[in-house]
Amino acid sequence: MSRGKREFENITVGYSNQADQEDSRKNGYVEFFGITRVRKGTFLNEEVVQSEKIINDIVAMDAGFDPNQLPDLSIGQTNIFNERIMPKITEKYGNFHTIDWLRDLSKDKYRHKWLKKQKEKGKLIDKLQAWHDAGSGWFCVLLIGLGAGIAAGVVDIGSNWTSNIKSGYCKKAFWLNREQCCWDALNITYDNYKNPICDEWISWTEVLGLKSGSTEYFFALIIHVIFAVMFGTVAAVLVKVYAPYACGSGVPEIKTILSGFVIRGYLGKWTLIIKSLGMILGSSAGLTLGKEGPFVHVASCCGNIFSYFFPKYGRNEAKKREILSAAASAGVAVAFGAPIGGVLFSLEEVSYYFPLKTLWRSFFCAMVAAFIVRTINPYGKERDVIFFIEYQPEWSFFELIPFIILGLLGGLFGYYFIKVNILWCKIRKTTKLGKFPITEVILISLITAFFGFFNEYTRMSMPELIRRLVGKCGPSDDSYLCDYAKNITSANEEVIPTKDNFGVHEAIWKLFLALLFYLVMLVLTFGIKIPCGLFVPSLAIGAITGRIIGIAMEILSFNYPSFFVFAAGCNENVACIIPGVYAIVGACAFLGGATRMTVSLVVIMVELTSGLSLIVPLMVSAFSAKLFGEFLCPGGIYDAHINLNNYPFLDNKEDYEFSAFAVDVMKPQKNDPPLTVLIQDGMTISQIEEITEKSNFTGFPIVVSHESQLLVGYILKRDLVMAFDQYKKSGLVNSNTLVKFSKTLSNKKNETCIKLDRLVEMAPICVSDQTPMDTVTDLFKKMGLSILLVTHFGKLLGVITKKDILKHLAEEREKKNL
Amino acid sequence: MSRGKREFENITVGYSNQADQEDSRKNGYVEFFGITRVRKGTFLNEEVVQSEKIINDIVAMDAGFDPNQLPDLSIGQTNIFNERIMPKITEKYGNFHTIDWLRDLSKDKYRHKWLKKQKEKGKLIDKLQAWHDAGSGWFCVLLIGLGAGIAAGVVDIGSNWTSNIKSGYCKKAFWLNREQCCWDALNITYDNYKNPICDEWISWTEVLGLKSGSTEYFFALIIHVIFAVMFGTVAAVLVKVYAPYACGSGVPEIKTILSGFVIRGYLGKWTLIIKSLGMILGSSAGLTLGKEGPFVHVASCCGNIFSYFFPKYGRNEAKKREILSAAASAGVAVAFGAPIGGVLFSLEEVSYYFPLKTLWRSFFCAMVAAFIVRTINPYGKERDVIFFIEYQPEWSFFELIPFIILGLLGGLFGYYFIKVNILWCKIRKTTKLGKFPITEVILISLITAFFGFFNEYTRMSMPELIRRLVGKCGPSDDSYLCDYAKNITSANEEVIPTKDNFGVHEAIWKLFLALLFYLVMLVLTFGIKIPCGLFVPSLAIGAITGRIIGIAMEILSFNYPSFFVFAAGCNENVACIIPGVYAIVGACAFLGGATRMTVSLVVIMVELTSGLSLIVPLMVSAFSAKLFGEFLCPGGIYDAHINLNNYPFLDNKEDYEFSAFAVDVMKPQKNDPPLTVLIQDGMTISQIEEITEKSNFTGFPIVVSHESQLLVGYILKRDLVMAFDQYKKSGLVNSNTLVKFSKTLSNKKNETCIKLDRLVEMAPICVSDQTPMDTVTDLFKKMGLSILLVTHFGKLLGVITKKDILKHLAEEREKKNL
Repeated sequence: MSRGKREFENITVGYSNQADQEDSRKNGYVEFFGITRVRKGTFLNEEVVQSEKIINDIVAMDAGFDPNQLPDLSIGQTNIFNERIMPKITEKYGNFHTIDWLRDLSKDKYRHKWLKKQKEKGKLIDKLQAWHDAGSGWFCVLLIGLGAGIAAGVVDIGSNWTSNIKSGYCKKAFWLNREQCCWDALNITYDNYKNPICDEWISWTEVLGLKSGSTEYFFALIIHVIFAVMFGTVAAVLVKVYAPYACGSGVPEIKTILSGFVIRGYLGKWTLIIKSLGMILGSSAGLTLGKEGPFVHVASCCGNIFSYFFPKYGRNEAKKREILSAAASAGVAVAFGAPIGGVLFSLEEVSYYFPLKTLWRSFFCAMVAAFIVRTINPYGKERDVIFFIEYQPEWSFFELIPFIILGLLGGLFGYYFIKVNILWCKIRKTTKLGKFPITEVILISLITAFFGFFNEYTRMSMPELIRRLVGKCGPSDDSYLCDYAKNITSANEEVIPTKDNFGVHEAIWKLFLALLFYLVMLVLTFGIKIPCGLFVPSLAIGAITGRIIGIAMEILSFNYPSFFVFAAGCNENVACIIPGVYAIVGACAFLGGATRMTVSLVVIMVELTSGLSLIVPLMVSAFSAKLFGEFLCPGGIYDAHINLNNYPFLDNKEDYEFSAFAVDVMKPQKNDPPLTVLIQDGMTISQIEEITEKSNFTGFPIVVSHESQLLVGYILKRDLVMAFDQYKKSGLVNSNTLVKFSKTLSNKKNETCIKLDRLVEMAPICVSDQTPMDTVTDLFKKMGLSILLVTHFGKLLGVITKKDILKHLAEEREKKNL
Repeated sequence: MSRGKREFENITVGYSNQADQEDSRKNGYVEFFGITRVRKGTFLNEEVVQSEKIINDIVAMDAGFDPNQLPDLSIGQTNIFNERIMPKITEKYGNFHTIDWLRDLSKDKYRHKWLKKQKEKGKLIDKLQAWHDAGSGWFCVLLIGLGAGIAAGVVDIGSNWTSNIKSGYCKKAFWLNREQCCWDALNITYDNYKNPICDEWISWTEVLGLKSGSTEYFFALIIHVIFAVMFGTVAAVLVKVYAPYACGSGVPEIKTILSGFVIRGYLGKWTLIIKSLGMILGSSAGLTLGKEGPFVHVASCCGNIFSYFFPKYGRNEAKKREILSAAASAGVAVAFGAPIGGVLFSLEEVSYYFPLKTLWRSFFCAMVAAFIVRTINPYGKERDVIFFIEYQPEWSFFELIPFIILGLLGGLFGYYFIKVNILWCKIRKTTKLGKFPITEVILISLITAFFGFFNEYTRMSMPELIRRLVGKCGPSDDSYLCDYAKNITSANEEVIPTKDNFGVHEAIWKLFLALLFYLVMLVLTFGIKIPCGLFVPSLAIGAITGRIIGIAMEILSFNYPSFFVFAAGCNENVACIIPGVYAIVGACAFLGGATRMTVSLVVIMVELTSGLSLIVPLMVSAFSAKLFGEFLCPGGIYDAHINLNNYPFLDNKEDYEFSAFAVDVMKPQKNDPPLTVLIQDGMTISQIEEITEKSNFTGFPIVVSHESQLLVGYILKRDLVMAFDQYKKSGLVNSNTLVKFSKTLSNKKNETCIKLDRLVEMAPICVSDQTPMDTVTDLFKKMGLSILLVTHFGKLLGVITKKDILKHLAEEREKKNL
């Protein structure tokens, strides 16, 4: 399981095709399904029927039918379709390869048509199969929703328990967490953090026999640090040993995967298990990381795993991505209890190809997942919202100005965070630091736990901190944050703070220190080799800033009540400024600055706080954060990490901004060796093998002749190799056997030859050499191509692949910046 | 202004090109901008610079620069770009034509690059211009948001006043509505409908000196009917005389326009004004129609009008559609106070091409619009939500079963509504009925007003009815709907109904009659020639059904409290079943059944009722309505109306399900006359004119020679005609002058010839003849093509247009159904 990470990091845009070629041969089609097929090949006038059956089986499997229940696509039946529509390509993708959406989707359409034709024959079993097929997408996302919901429930409950175990254990039963332990206790009191105190729950300092005092404080610190370091270390070791892909937030990689890249094992079961465990340990260790972003990865793992139960999705990479898009929305839905926000997150941030059908399925999946989490009820509360705000938030027009300032600060935070974090990640990659990931995690845990202990706002968990910051001071709330002179009219009435007392000033200073602490630690933490998300830390930093500004505004309104904005906007009978509202808005702005989300962010915040009345302030701050952030540096943290890791991601949000033409980008250019092509008629097996072995392309164009260069079609190397292997095993060919790629060519008398026309893609997408690159990149983005042929008057001039475009874009950008 | 409607209805898929050709010549380029350009043409070795200037001006204007401030794209400057990228096509689209997104977007990119290059030159004015350009999209949607918000405020206030004027007038000032009139009155009481009664407001029966009694009732009926018929008639006459396009909901047409169709005047200022007036009158007439759907049309009109202030959008049909998508979301945002739902509505239901940039702009536009409406505050309440529910809606698991039943009923309603309404519309189209639209409106108004008067639930306005149905019975509510034996513990506590009294039974019967009434009237009304939407009527019918089922469930729970579901799900201290929740869910289900919206519908309902806790029931009902509805008949009411009117709409939600190839669909087929092509060299002006005049194509492929048929490029007829016109005006050509379409061809000594290479599209999108139609339709949908050339080995075989595809689809579907 330790494979993957190291190679992965070395992959650049020019990732190896050669290495993969060997892999493809090793895991070639014949062995791929565990079935050895040594049958006679397709020779002219010889056993045509049987060899058609072989090809039909291959086509059927590849179109996504269950390999154990292959439908009988014998010639009689295939003729019911127009034979030409059959996708003749039988490849599977190698690791770190780009998928061809167009081909995959047409394969699926073929499967679909076959089932429909069967259904029309009227047999009950065929009808049932067609219905099962039609419903399998919904059933699959239902399972994913269930899976993601359960995973989230387990992680939430687990991290709750491990967080509690840091302070003590339950005498009755060690597996109960503090709240459960004290449920039926006789004497329950609550400490400053609203944690229950009861006889059944024994703190570690009590076990050591210490009473409160400086010794107790010291030992509590020691125990706190020991547990934090222990949790961090275990998480890092688990990741390193069992699933290197489980580290980080996973969102950049999932964006890349959804854009059509294959990373084997990234969404596997081990990644799922280790990531879940790592999230429990990492968040309990008190590190400056969230477990919300990684939920997207966990849900996507569920998506990938469950898709294998449905060959339609599991065996078709393009269709699988529809399911993964839905899974990603379930991830956000479980993380924040925000199903609509989750769907919009998937649409705005991670997905590449998002047809309406996927929108509906994503919504369903997100709903199911959110519903399961609500039912499991990991937070042990009535509400299914994490940061439920219990008051009706109000705001006045003039407050839009501080909200915009918060937005600008959010943009600034995003700029700082992206620049410094990427710099730090580069240092980690290039220096010795990267070689000791576990040591790094231990050091970070140690520093976070030790320095965080002295400030109550950094000692409590980040979600708890946010909950406090977005809250409103109640009549009985006597924490520093709520140390106001209050004007309480009656028990049920609203509490109106009238003057700031000493405690509030103290709280501001502590919050400011917490802000600095988190700003430093987030940059160091995001990127260490354990699961870590940035949602909650960004929200926390934003909420701190927002609360500070909110309190400042409030103090201003206390001191200058006659200033015209306060005089106009404030009313004696209600609180004029609610600092909790500023904390919500600040949280939104800072997360927006880091990720550059807008619509989905606002919706997530609305669902998170269930405050529909704050939609305008949230929008204003998210937009100012986005605009100012994009002005300072374009692209969010996820895009920055995609660039850092050189993932082959062709951003469909960006317009092509240069002036090149297909002829300028295609291979070969002037000084390159000429393009490797195959001739449709007259080459022998050995000649073709010589060519394919020398080159490192994944496929070859076929032309009429070297002289004319007229394009006939395109064939994948993998298919050629497979076909030759099979024919050789049948023993009926030798190296000098002729190969014909066209159907219409007839063979001479007594001439032995192989006809491979059914493996040739007869209508590859072509453009003329004078096509602007605007159109070419659009074709790649919208049609999901992996290769495009460039012709002039029907003659082949060159090919353009996705990596050619990425290389071209990188070069042009470099030129521009010089 | 009466043009349009009649021709419009006769348009079928094979809409005329010939007629439009004449139009294009009449309104040709030269006159189009009010500038007569008679300059010398582009001859070889002669005044090259000046003729380049002409072409550059044309290109600049066409790329979307302001015609009054054309940038100087002289040769020196154009060379700073690669000259090949310049979009050489200078057409404007005719009425009922299909736009070419690819070409329009590339034009805009050209403009963008020019501005960027200018900006880099560093002059302040250029920089300002570039910034203005970059910000103009945002500024434009800001204006649209303001415009749509103000329009909505005016319509809401206006329809409030006209609704009031039906019952009486304000003695103080006739322009005040009832609520405003009674604001500072001394003795205010409220009638059954919660309308204020005061001395300043005089009802018409009082004017006639009638006291309450049967005579008063009779005269109230007469006055009610007279006003309703009067409002209906005025609306119908206004629509007929001033803006025929203002009738209907407008959503099907806007879907078609957004998919790339041009309907001149459909989004004009007259349509805007008449539609707004018609909405005021139509809804005050008490007809079974809503003014919420037409808001989408009104907002789109604002979008179209404001886009003309920004040549970037106004002069580029593809870019304008981005703005129109944003405007459509503003329409829903103002209709329901639902900005997020509006964006999703635009995404899910009406838009065709929805890049992320449009998502952000739509969101901004919708927010601004919703904010303006909130500020104008037409409903005179604190809430910006129309059907604000004042209680915290709760639901139990077992209630999902009735919610699913509501969903199925919603699907059934959709099926019934679509089938019967379309049937009725066909009758209207084919029989004499269609010739008397005003009479029809008068009749419908008469019937609705008369029969509606006798039932209080049909006499009150539909929004008022919905508000009551979704409400919860309060302690002092003594209407029939709330006639329960109640268990009131204290004034502040919740009211728990314990038994149904007589009034509830009475209310159920009346609701049932209202349901039947609305079911019949909606079908007859949707499609009459005044502005009419179906959102609110569908919501009302759904809310009635929901309330009835809710009350039935409630009565069950009163009578069988020990039945296991009630025993498990109900709690003595809270109301077990809230019929208002059923009304909300039913409204959602029925609207979903009619329109087949899902995600956007749920979000709209959440924003509408501000009940985030009902998201699961809403989703369950919307999904069951959609699934059952699609099972009964695929496609919502809007799609049905698009089909009914034969709009050229290529649905991007549907997969291509047949097995044809490009060669089977392209023109010419076997028995067709050969394709009209131009030869790149050697044709004279008169030869070309003969060809263009005979044919009714919008453009011509250019080939190397008749023998080779090798494709060179594609030229628009319009451009040819314009170019010849200009050259002839210059007096330097005659009919025998040679025309060359290629740059590389040199002319013989002393030979006079015209070179039109800059007008030729050198890289039209081509496919091979063996390309499956899957891929071809995908290219049309995703790339927004209007024409595609089919080649084989570089030789032109035929062309495929959008209308060829639509015809092919219609034929295949017919074949399948036989």
